Amino acid sequence: MQIVSNIQEMCSISDEVRKIGQIIVLVPTMGYFHEGHLSLMREGRKKGDVLVVSLFVNPTQFEEGEDYEVYPRDFSRDKSLIAGMGVDILFVPALEEMYPEGYQTFLEVERLTKPMEGQFRPTHFRGVATVVAKLFNIIKPNIAIFGEKDYQQLVVIRRMVEDLNMGVEIIGMPIVREGDGLAMSSRNTYLTLEQRKAALSLNRSLKKASELYRSGERNPMRIIDTVKEVIEREEGIIIDYVEIRDAKTLEEIEIIGDQAVIALAIKVGKVRLIDNLIFGEE
Amino acid sequence: MQIVSNIQEMCSISDEVRKIGQIIVLVPTMGYFHEGHLSLMREGRKKGDVLVVSLFVNPTQFEEGEDYEVYPRDFSRDKSLIAGMGVDILFVPALEEMYPEGYQTFLEVERLTKPMEGQFRPTHFRGVATVVAKLFNIIKPNIAIFGEKDYQQLVVIRRMVEDLNMGVEIIGMPIVREGDGLAMSSRNTYLTLEQRKAALSLNRSLKKASELYRSGERNPMRIIDTVKEVIEREEGIIIDYVEIRDAKTLEEIEIIGDQAVIALAIKVGKVRLIDNLIFGEE
Repeated sequence: MQIVSNIQEMCSISDEVRKIGQIIVLVPTMGYFHEGHLSLMREGRKKGDVLVVSLFVNPTQFEEGEDYEVYPRDFSRDKSLIAGMGVDILFVPALEEMYPEGYQTFLEVERLTKPMEGQFRPTHFRGVATVVAKLFNIIKPNIAIFGEKDYQQLVVIRRMVEDLNMGVEIIGMPIVREGDGLAMSSRNTYLTLEQRKAALSLNRSLKKASELYRSGERNPMRIIDTVKEVIEREEGIIIDYVEIRDAKTLEEIEIIGDQAVIALAIKVGKVRLIDNLIFGEE
Repeated sequence: MQIVSNIQEMCSISDEVRKIGQIIVLVPTMGYFHEGHLSLMREGRKKGDVLVVSLFVNPTQFEEGEDYEVYPRDFSRDKSLIAGMGVDILFVPALEEMYPEGYQTFLEVERLTKPMEGQFRPTHFRGVATVVAKLFNIIKPNIAIFGEKDYQQLVVIRRMVEDLNMGVEIIGMPIVREGDGLAMSSRNTYLTLEQRKAALSLNRSLKKASELYRSGERNPMRIIDTVKEVIEREEGIIIDYVEIRDAKTLEEIEIIGDQAVIALAIKVGKVRLIDNLIFGEE
């Protein structure tokens, strides 16, 4: 595994790889790897010739007052964790090289970024779209792999790639869960034992939603109410949102049809967690 | 000269050309060619192996109420005009393919787009940056050539390319003028004889600015005042702005140093014209 931190060096490598017609697969990450990340890398290893993992805690996707400064970072732990994954290049650009003085260009995906996460993190997707566009330009992947836990992010990135003719195939991979059902997240490390127990209500509530769907319920509001009830039974959880929307357009729906997603975000203490489920795909 | 209108076809061609290591040069245009465009193509022909000219009247860079609908278009005239220029591919994408239903992704260059043109055309550079990013992704040029008449555009594009790691070399080419000094523009075709005579005051005023600079004047306000005086002597001209700024950062300056640009925009009747001059480079 080659570690590359210089942007120009990464550009040269990817130019050479593309020239000889090899397939580059990118797994973009903010590090502090867990099994979710590893599942993306495993898929990436199968899909291409050169597997690049980027590791960059991207400041522009954190809101003012969020956890950018304390976001968990452990480079040597990360290196050992992915040692056996067949990663060809670990790209770890420096902050000053990604956003040098005078930096001022941002990508905006308009409608898809407004609801759900966008209501609580108004500049989040602007930061995500911008850093992903930069990584695509530097690494020139044929394929990029993202996790479905950040469901809205996946939809936004697909739209951006199509709108801007980026020519990158986007693959979404299923959420990986802990044994107890909690969706894996680098932020889970923030949770106290008690908070973690309360957070299990997220997965429990989604299971309940899935049961209702399988038993024929197609009214979004009735499912949302039940999900909220399950979560609110726990102490100390604040619900940011529970929403059922069209899985592709993220538009509101009155009846759950073929392609619908239920997505939610909560705060437990200072920790913000998200989870989701695509109906019919559980 | 091959004419390509399908985006996917253009992508495939540029992928193949890049794979065999040839240099692609792009000259992006909105058509209705004049000698300014031809000078860019001439330079492009020298700089690379495959010369691509794009012709697309980009709606997103026109403000509401501007001249998008009536912007001069004449494809067969354009084809004949460039017949001898050594253009390999003329790329003429369809509007519905460039901005399909549901399109919603835009690029924003923040500070550089605020003054000068940005004050009068607040969404103009967002449209420019977006379409140029799309063209770069589709055509994958090593080099792209722009005219210096749209001086602020050139600075904005350079910044975008650097910020987003686009890896395209940007070349700016000098303004080409008519025999009487009027900067060439597709919009000159809108001018009545009388308006055109009045519009000559732009170049005359810039010549006066240049004379003052060469005689040692370094105070921006004194030069600006003189320029305005020269222009205001003509009937029927409304000045949008006359500004002297740092040629690279477009920041305001108190003293004209090494790198300063004087840029201006006026309206004569319904026609809006711009012109500029870089001090010391006349």
